[in-house]
Amino acid sequence: MYMGHLRKFGNWGSVAAKLIASNALKLPSFHDEVRMWVFEEVLPNGEKLTDVINKTNENVKYLPGIKLGRNVVADPDLENAVKEANMLVFVTPHQFMGGICKKLKGKVTGEVEAISLVKGMEVKKEGPCMISSLISKELGINSCVLMGANIANEIAVEKFSEATVGYRESREIADTWVQLFSTPYFMVTPVHDVEGVELCGTLKNVVAIAAGFVDGLDMGNNTKAAIMRIGLREMRALSKLLFPSVKDSTFFESCGVADVITTCLGGRNRRVAEAFAQSGGKRSFDELEAKMLQGQKLQGVSTAREVYEVLNHCGWLEMFPLFSTVHQICTGRLKPEAIVHYRDHKA
Amino acid sequence: MYMGHLRKFGNWGSVAAKLIASNALKLPSFHDEVRMWVFEEVLPNGEKLTDVINKTNENVKYLPGIKLGRNVVADPDLENAVKEANMLVFVTPHQFMGGICKKLKGKVTGEVEAISLVKGMEVKKEGPCMISSLISKELGINSCVLMGANIANEIAVEKFSEATVGYRESREIADTWVQLFSTPYFMVTPVHDVEGVELCGTLKNVVAIAAGFVDGLDMGNNTKAAIMRIGLREMRALSKLLFPSVKDSTFFESCGVADVITTCLGGRNRRVAEAFAQSGGKRSFDELEAKMLQGQKLQGVSTAREVYEVLNHCGWLEMFPLFSTVHQICTGRLKPEAIVHYRDHKA
Repeated sequence: MYMGHLRKFGNWGSVAAKLIASNALKLPSFHDEVRMWVFEEVLPNGEKLTDVINKTNENVKYLPGIKLGRNVVADPDLENAVKEANMLVFVTPHQFMGGICKKLKGKVTGEVEAISLVKGMEVKKEGPCMISSLISKELGINSCVLMGANIANEIAVEKFSEATVGYRESREIADTWVQLFSTPYFMVTPVHDVEGVELCGTLKNVVAIAAGFVDGLDMGNNTKAAIMRIGLREMRALSKLLFPSVKDSTFFESCGVADVITTCLGGRNRRVAEAFAQSGGKRSFDELEAKMLQGQKLQGVSTAREVYEVLNHCGWLEMFPLFSTVHQICTGRLKPEAIVHYRDHKA
Repeated sequence: MYMGHLRKFGNWGSVAAKLIASNALKLPSFHDEVRMWVFEEVLPNGEKLTDVINKTNENVKYLPGIKLGRNVVADPDLENAVKEANMLVFVTPHQFMGGICKKLKGKVTGEVEAISLVKGMEVKKEGPCMISSLISKELGINSCVLMGANIANEIAVEKFSEATVGYRESREIADTWVQLFSTPYFMVTPVHDVEGVELCGTLKNVVAIAAGFVDGLDMGNNTKAAIMRIGLREMRALSKLLFPSVKDSTFFESCGVADVITTCLGGRNRRVAEAFAQSGGKRSFDELEAKMLQGQKLQGVSTAREVYEVLNHCGWLEMFPLFSTVHQICTGRLKPEAIVHYRDHKA
């Protein structure tokens, strides 16, 4: 078993390790040991992060106070971490996935299955660059995805939550991943629609930006619910245009409606968009990000741009008024108020 | 044109009158005058409510500060209000609909169309008692419904919102209602699924009770999103069991996902359920209602009981863990914490 996780994403990666570790111990069909690749850091006291994780069984930097399980072993060496693993769990920011796959090429052999928890793949003009496809293409292995309304810190303290596993072909493999992640407080449902599930995890960030504008303009719950609904509809419509195999029912799953709700209630995309609208669009997203996010970047703003380019390229702008309006507000071409000033083009 | 509205519901009725009045003036296909039946009351200063509405063009008691439109005429006489009307809009608490229909029997003649904005019909063991069916049966006329994420006070000040018109047969009639209600800030979509749309307006209140429990127990956004999603799924599954013609797509409309969101973010069902959970279930709903709602009753608690009886009667309890758990928490048989302690029986 291998768990990849990097700094700045160590939070969700550590929680996923905790879920997996408890099941790996409990279920006889899995090896006990969960090896977790950790991007090495030296802590202020001079100790190495992996050493401290292995000594204390806590990710003291990214998930302090939570025991990961005694069968989790942190490993700073990527190649060593995947050695002999036959189940690979990817949890990193999406921009690192290309490099990681390159490093792993040829190192992963035999009957290996992968699952990606990576949200926010890029959407290029010629189509989205799915992380599950990247893994399959680069490593020659099958990859499922796991998405959903998953705020790491809430799952870490065992509050009830759900997730969706998207799979391409084998229901049996999907069921294995469901077994590995499910706990009484974390309910996982398999869905035969890997693209639909994965696209949800990316496109919802554009909806969160729209919801943040509504909050910043103090438009109330009615308007916010309407914008979230229209956003969900555009997510569904665009996913189906990009992949005709995508199913409507996927958007009723945790990865769909529930993740839209969570992301539009909390979340940094919503928060920074709220501040942007409060400033009347006068403070740029770059400025607000720098001030509010300590160097992290918002995925919603760049995804909105990527989506806009696809829509423009394909002649679909009119069909997606919310998505295109979000981008135009982000770039200053439209005022934040424009988020509710468009016609109802049925996507 | 006739608008029925009663005290305690005068808020939404008045807002609906305002929407209709603006379109009746603007569109040549409608008569200008909007006659609005108002349950007569004597105001503290001794004046009659209908007189004041007609003098000031405001419903000073239930929607103060908002001009209804100079073509709205308040009428305290039900029979007179519907005389010569060929479009009837019903907006009253659901428990008055039986009596109103009895009084109107035989008084409504010719080519008359109705629409019901009444949320929360009863769900009897032998099936739900749809208000649209009641109107059709008692008055011998066709009835559409209009539901959605519609907080009256937010629409009154022209904040962006949406609604869904459910129709049984004639798309043409549905389009007429859409014309009559739509404004640039109120977007209405017709859906060929009168039962699905109407059931949404009732069942969402049970979901709001569940969301209130989650809030009261301070379980966080993840859990709340999961509970809202499961609630939406059970709404859909139960509606389809009761009426096989109900469509999945209806639950993506404003009456479905958006109304669930609005009702679970604000709303009195959520608020009282939150207080109930905060008290550990020790204060009864009756007590909390009396204290928090000035004599009004929650629809969610009684709907949860009615739904439980249907599920029990039909042997469907296991298929609807959220709905049945809500009722058992309301009656004290289960603790509020039980809202997240059930197995995932796929509805």
